[in-house]
Amino acid sequence: NDKLKIFSLNSNESLAQEVADEIGRPLGKCSVKRFSDGEIQINIEESIRGCDVFVIQSTSNPVNDNLMELLIMIDALMRASARSINVVMPYYGYARQDRKARSREPITAKLVANLLEKAGADRVIAIDLHAPQIQGFFDIPIDHLVAEPILTEYFKSKGLEGNELVIVSPDHGGVTRARKMADRMKAPIAIIDKRRPRPNVAEVMSIVGNVEGKTAILIDDIIDTAGTITIAANAIIESGAKEVYACCTHPVLSGPAIERIDNSQIKELVITNSIELPENKKSAKIKQLSIAKLLGEAVIRVFEEKSVSTLFE
Amino acid sequence: NDKLKIFSLNSNESLAQEVADEIGRPLGKCSVKRFSDGEIQINIEESIRGCDVFVIQSTSNPVNDNLMELLIMIDALMRASARSINVVMPYYGYARQDRKARSREPITAKLVANLLEKAGADRVIAIDLHAPQIQGFFDIPIDHLVAEPILTEYFKSKGLEGNELVIVSPDHGGVTRARKMADRMKAPIAIIDKRRPRPNVAEVMSIVGNVEGKTAILIDDIIDTAGTITIAANAIIESGAKEVYACCTHPVLSGPAIERIDNSQIKELVITNSIELPENKKSAKIKQLSIAKLLGEAVIRVFEEKSVSTLFE
Ligand SMILES: Nc1ncnc2c1ncn2[C@@H]1O[C@H](COP(=O)(O)O)[C@@H](O)[C@H]1O
Ligand SMILES: Nc1ncnc2c1ncn2[C@@H]1O[C@H](COP(=O)(O)O)[C@@H](O)[C@H]1O
Repeated sequence: NDKLKIFSLNSNESLAQEVADEIGRPLGKCSVKRFSDGEIQINIEESIRGCDVFVIQSTSNPVNDNLMELLIMIDALMRASARSINVVMPYYGYARQDRKARSREPITAKLVANLLEKAGADRVIAIDLHAPQIQGFFDIPIDHLVAEPILTEYFKSKGLEGNELVIVSPDHGGVTRARKMADRMKAPIAIIDKRRPRPNVAEVMSIVGNVEGKTAILIDDIIDTAGTITIAANAIIESGAKEVYACCTHPVLSGPAIERIDNSQIKELVITNSIELPENKKSAKIKQLSIAKLLGEAVIRVFEEKSVSTLFE
Repeated sequence: NDKLKIFSLNSNESLAQEVADEIGRPLGKCSVKRFSDGEIQINIEESIRGCDVFVIQSTSNPVNDNLMELLIMIDALMRASARSINVVMPYYGYARQDRKARSREPITAKLVANLLEKAGADRVIAIDLHAPQIQGFFDIPIDHLVAEPILTEYFKSKGLEGNELVIVSPDHGGVTRARKMADRMKAPIAIIDKRRPRPNVAEVMSIVGNVEGKTAILIDDIIDTAGTITIAANAIIESGAKEVYACCTHPVLSGPAIERIDNSQIKELVITNSIELPENKKSAKIKQLSIAKLLGEAVIRVFEEKSVSTLFE
């Protein structure tokens, strides 16, 4: 399989190295630097002619720099005669800008899809897109992986399972995800129900479902400023739960997130390494699980032209 | 002309305001902010349905942020039913990455053209592109303006003209530009000739043409780290010139540029405001001229469907 090449850019090198190790191939040689004026300078330092190339890049913060690195890399690979350019995006930035919520807003998630295609991507591998509809923004194949089984396995390994447990969705949009985890853990679900009784009146948060005396696990796709999740966790404890865990695929954790988590009732926050955590975002409460095996398996299956969907069984 | 709308993004608001003043129209209302995680949030705050919209943005440092602002704005304008989207780029970032100088390099200047078109730009107005061939990277109309007459007028207003003067190109690539200025000032030209006698031997710089006893004006399109231009200026003085000025359209001025200029034999550096100078790049030696009138005139002509080429007479 010397026609399979894996390249890392700057967003998540440690994950890329892990994926390469899983596959048993070295990372491809390339230099990704800056000119004095801040422009990105990329040079691919080995031949990739006729190869199936996989580029691993999360478009996490700094999102615009990481996205441009990816687009410029795709351009360089295309001009260097790659047979196929497969973009592995553990985190897909701008995914929340996926519709016009107000007049005259952009739909940046669609723009990003267009830019990737125009640059020359042949395929995208993504995980837990904020909305599954983003798959339809692409006119190239997209493999959509799910990290929920990895999170679930971790909780199972702690001995958590069954009716002592309740899986909680922090909003109505996330119920499907909570339902899947609940099935796998043979646990019931609950839903945080936020509503505004009248315009300009504070939101009211209530819990639909029974959490009393149980261990609750809050599950979301993205945790950003951690406002919703920490308020929900505290409400769950107030409603009589024994303890509350939280988990998510994508730890954006911007602004006051770490402080809020540290000061909340959350016992442990379980995340994946789809986004690399800088040192100042590490906390004793945070447990990071690796998606390298999942990605490595997906890369091999795509390379061997096998189905990726069986990865979810 | 209420169908003509001008919007500014964040790279060069003061130039955009000047252009709007030239045209006699207010800047369009839009908010360009950041979400907590660094993603760009744009909202256009007035109707632009059926309008010819001009967006003014230089893709100067931070180039990736400025480029993404522009692409997202184009996406938002397109979805808000603009009749035409005209992108005014006083400085076109990544223009120097316009060819594969080595194997497996990207051609980012072409990538940027593709991205602008894909996002939905209908026309580009640019000034002194690093290579005129970049016009051919677009499949939409591009108006290519020239700032040399503005620089020339300034030197003429100092009483500099004729045979006391010599216009110097800092490299072979810039001779055409120097020739144009020389014609307009009825002055002779000279060329800095750099060559490497053998591989791995230091470059030798010599001057082709006569500078002795004259006032020399070095002209370039971009001054970035100012290495070439300051070495050239010092060589010109050593060859017996009376004094030496330098000028350029695009003051990138990165890294040690200001220090080098301040410590060089350059008497005055004349630049335009295609790139906004931050406070820490201001220097008593630097004179900044405005291209607002040129841009304003171009915008009006495009809007009125008149030729832009006569602007250069
Ligand atoms: N990077 C971001 N940070 C915070 N909010 C965002 C971001 N991008 C988009 N949004 C907003 O979040 C909303 C979508 O979130 P959701 O309702 O969870 O799908 C959109 O209406 C956007 O205005
Ligand atoms: N932002 C940049 N800063 C410095 N050098 C660059 C930059 N972008 C491209 N280059 C290099 O400059 C060369 C083009 O400059 P030139 O020979 O003046 O056209 C290319 O071969 C690039 O490798």
